[in-house]
Amino acid sequence: MKHYDKRDYPLSEIRRHLEPGPIVLVSSAHDGQRNIMTMGWHMMLGFSPALFGCYIWSHNHSHDMIRRSRACVINVPTFELIDTAVAIGNSTGAEIDKFETYGLTAVEAERVEAPLIGECYANFECELEDDSLASAQNLFIWRVVNAHVAASPKNPRTFHYRGDGEFMVAGRVVSRRSAFKPEML
Amino acid sequence: MKHYDKRDYPLSEIRRHLEPGPIVLVSSAHDGQRNIMTMGWHMMLGFSPALFGCYIWSHNHSHDMIRRSRACVINVPTFELIDTAVAIGNSTGAEIDKFETYGLTAVEAERVEAPLIGECYANFECELEDDSLASAQNLFIWRVVNAHVAASPKNPRTFHYRGDGEFMVAGRVVSRRSAFKPEML
Repeated sequence: MKHYDKRDYPLSEIRRHLEPGPIVLVSSAHDGQRNIMTMGWHMMLGFSPALFGCYIWSHNHSHDMIRRSRACVINVPTFELIDTAVAIGNSTGAEIDKFETYGLTAVEAERVEAPLIGECYANFECELEDDSLASAQNLFIWRVVNAHVAASPKNPRTFHYRGDGEFMVAGRVVSRRSAFKPEML
Repeated sequence: MKHYDKRDYPLSEIRRHLEPGPIVLVSSAHDGQRNIMTMGWHMMLGFSPALFGCYIWSHNHSHDMIRRSRACVINVPTFELIDTAVAIGNSTGAEIDKFETYGLTAVEAERVEAPLIGECYANFECELEDDSLASAQNLFIWRVVNAHVAASPKNPRTFHYRGDGEFMVAGRVVSRRSAFKPEML
C-alpha cells in the first residue's frame, strides 16, 4: 500500500480535509493496546483552537481506550483504502490487532500515544477538549494539536458513507472563491 | 429553479443524506422574521431518535432566531444551487430577506414554524433536543421530527466545502454491501 510523504500542516487549515465529511479512521492506544475504528459521524467545531467533534458509541471497543487515554488520531483515507475501512468497521479490536490484520503501519505520533496510520494521506493528533456530552450523547470534542498532511494528492479522493453499505466517492473540485467576501474565506 | 416531488421519509434513514457531509441550508423563523444560513459544520448523532448536531456561531443572524424558536429546518441542496448557497453564506439576513433575494420558495413545514426550502431535494424539520453546549461550543443538538425527501435523484449531486472558496462535488456511488455484517448495515 502507498505511503505518503507528509509535512506539518497548519492547524487553522484542517477544515479543508475534515469539513467535506469523509470517512475517517480513528486510531487509539492505551495500556499496551491499540485499535482503529471507522467513523463517519464527525464535524469541525473551531479554527483556533482547532476543534473537532465526533460520536463514539459506548459499545465500540475503542470507546474505553479513547476515554481513558484522552487522546486519539484522526486519519483520513482515500479510495484505495475503502475495503480496508469497511473491514475495520466490521471487525472488533477485542479479537484482533487491526494494524497487523489489515497490514497498516503504525507511525509514532509526536504529541499523543495513539499511532498515526502511515497509509492515510492526513493524520490529526487530538487531545480531549470537552467530554461533557460523552455520556449523554456519545459526543467527544477534540483539540487537534498536531497535523500531518501529504502535499499530494491535492484533491484527495476521499469516500463518504451513505448508509446501507454504499459510499459516495469524492468527485471534481470547483472554486467559487471570487464570490466570497474576503473575511468569509 | 427545479422543484421536487417529495415524500415522507423514514427518520431512521436520514443519515443517508447527512452523513456524507454536504453543505446544507438552515432555514429558521421567529417573531415574523425568517432567514437562511449556509452550513458545513454538522454531524449525525443518533438513529432513533434521529439526532443531528451543528455549529451555529453566535454572530450569525440566524443564531438568536434559532435559539429562541428552538427549531429549524435542515435543507440539502444539489449542485444547481451552489451559487445560491455561496450567496446566502456571503450575505446577512439583517439586511435582506434571503428567500426573496435568491428566489427560493418557502414551503410550510408540518411540525415547526421554520419553512422548508422548496428547491432543495431533502428537508428535515428539527426541534431542539440539547443546547447544553450552545454557549460554550456553539453546538446545537436537534431531534429530526419530520423528513421530506425526493425519490429522484437517487444519488444526489451534493457539494461539500473544502475551505478557501472550493467545493468538492459528489462523485460516483459504490456499494460494499456484501462486505458488511448484517447488523452493521
